Amino acid sequence: MASFEMITSASARLRGHVRRTPLLSSPFLDDMAGRRILVKAECLQHTGSFKFRGGWSALSALPPEIRKNGVIAFSSGNHAQGVALAAKLHGVASVIVMPSDAPKTKIENTRAFGAEVVLYDRLNEDRDAIGARLSAERGLTLVKPFDEPMVIAGQGTAGLEIAEQAEEEGVSAAEVLVPCGGGGLSSGIALALETRAPGFIVRTCEPENFDDFARSLTSGEIGRNSALTGSICDAILTPEPGKITFPILKRLAGAGIAVSDDEALRAMALAFKRLKIVIEPGGAVALAAALFHGTALGSDTIIAVASGGNVDMPIFASALERFG
Amino acid sequence: MASFEMITSASARLRGHVRRTPLLSSPFLDDMAGRRILVKAECLQHTGSFKFRGGWSALSALPPEIRKNGVIAFSSGNHAQGVALAAKLHGVASVIVMPSDAPKTKIENTRAFGAEVVLYDRLNEDRDAIGARLSAERGLTLVKPFDEPMVIAGQGTAGLEIAEQAEEEGVSAAEVLVPCGGGGLSSGIALALETRAPGFIVRTCEPENFDDFARSLTSGEIGRNSALTGSICDAILTPEPGKITFPILKRLAGAGIAVSDDEALRAMALAFKRLKIVIEPGGAVALAAALFHGTALGSDTIIAVASGGNVDMPIFASALERFG
Repeated sequence: MASFEMITSASARLRGHVRRTPLLSSPFLDDMAGRRILVKAECLQHTGSFKFRGGWSALSALPPEIRKNGVIAFSSGNHAQGVALAAKLHGVASVIVMPSDAPKTKIENTRAFGAEVVLYDRLNEDRDAIGARLSAERGLTLVKPFDEPMVIAGQGTAGLEIAEQAEEEGVSAAEVLVPCGGGGLSSGIALALETRAPGFIVRTCEPENFDDFARSLTSGEIGRNSALTGSICDAILTPEPGKITFPILKRLAGAGIAVSDDEALRAMALAFKRLKIVIEPGGAVALAAALFHGTALGSDTIIAVASGGNVDMPIFASALERFG
Repeated sequence: MASFEMITSASARLRGHVRRTPLLSSPFLDDMAGRRILVKAECLQHTGSFKFRGGWSALSALPPEIRKNGVIAFSSGNHAQGVALAAKLHGVASVIVMPSDAPKTKIENTRAFGAEVVLYDRLNEDRDAIGARLSAERGLTLVKPFDEPMVIAGQGTAGLEIAEQAEEEGVSAAEVLVPCGGGGLSSGIALALETRAPGFIVRTCEPENFDDFARSLTSGEIGRNSALTGSICDAILTPEPGKITFPILKRLAGAGIAVSDDEALRAMALAFKRLKIVIEPGGAVALAAALFHGTALGSDTIIAVASGGNVDMPIFASALERFG
């Protein structure tokens, strides 16, 4: 199980390695929302997303004699880059198993962060079998993207920073909106805030039609999304809530919020214009909820996490052209 | 005259009001440059540029009985917004005199930051006469954009942060590249570093054909640019070095560097991709110098100031399309 103590331990291991990302704001966004909006800019984290926190936490928690054999992860996105850079900086090997049809730039970036990329054919090969074989042969440790206590603890360090930075801003009560895929970031932040900022409540934010967390939080039972693709918010399209993350959020989170792809794109354009940061679609759903779903919100101050910025140029340019 | 002591006093006045902007980096940019590149992201400052520092410094240094009458500034750009927001937050009026053909969004933004915008006809009206009349009638204090000690002291607080943040990164020697118009930011940073980081040296960065500082530093005498327009780097097109800023930089700065408009746009695209920040053309010339003028540089570590992010969408989109 993930706990608050694991987050403070992770924070000590992360010190000096992870960037304390700023809490940004703009009077224009406040006016638009009719309340105070603070944006935790995790897109400015190393590798362009919060995932580096979890990667570093997991790597640094391994016993050195296990860690030296290297780690393995399945991901074509932000988790791949977070684990790859954390492994490189620990001086150990990482193997990232990616589908052969993953975007070329993601494969190149993951390699550039020092990883050995193993490609597999999505139709004819079994990803898990490849991973199991590599792990057995080389003694690699699997780093799961969200359902892993040390990863949740690492993501939770963003929550410790939010509590500190909100206090500096004089904020003692707020809804904290978090882009939510498997729930690693949301559950880590919720655990951190439970102890450090008890006046704050986490709200999960997801794309419309991929709101498995919102529906599961309502029903009290883990429910699946009916589709696996079909939103531009690629970073947070997971089939269902995690088995470790869901109970944490069931206990601590408010109702989930779902936003449309166009609302995410519009939030990206506003973040460009008013905050001068680059957010990817999946990383923009919390800001979109803060700006365009005010009727679902209850607090005077909203803290929206901008969880990542790894967006391809054409998608970003189209967000600016349509909504800039 | 501006001095180091004025910068530390300004820093005390700015505390809690000005954002401590992050020092960003990317292994991709390091590889490209063949040296370590750290980017001081002043585009994330309130109002989207470092100018808010100088505005706050000037406003907060005024005796309350003078300040209460309000302030006036001539600017259609970042200085206008910095002064307007600083005045608003001090609870006093600001009048910004702008040409009637200034971009609508800049006029709207300046108004939204609380300023009274007075438009004048560039061809038929005398800007200085309008300013003098308004100042006399209402007792407004003029806040100059760079040749003003309290403004230089405010910009210099960015230099104090650079010294602190570089020390946290273990950097004790570096060239600090600064986008340079009238020289307020460059001279403030140079004064701060002279005392706080004596192993650092400021290098002014300008657009090609508007490198009045580079030429003046070489000749030892203030020289003018032959043209006033003709670069996309609008924020830093000033006719000649300031009378207060030039002697400071003559004493403390290394040789100036000039970059092309295309290099500035390419640096913007790389900052989008690798740092997830939005930089305007004039704010990108230092990063462009760090990345594309390596032969003019001598240190293993370069600190490039990204001084502002107030770029219109079509220019940013074209930077991405051409160089993304």
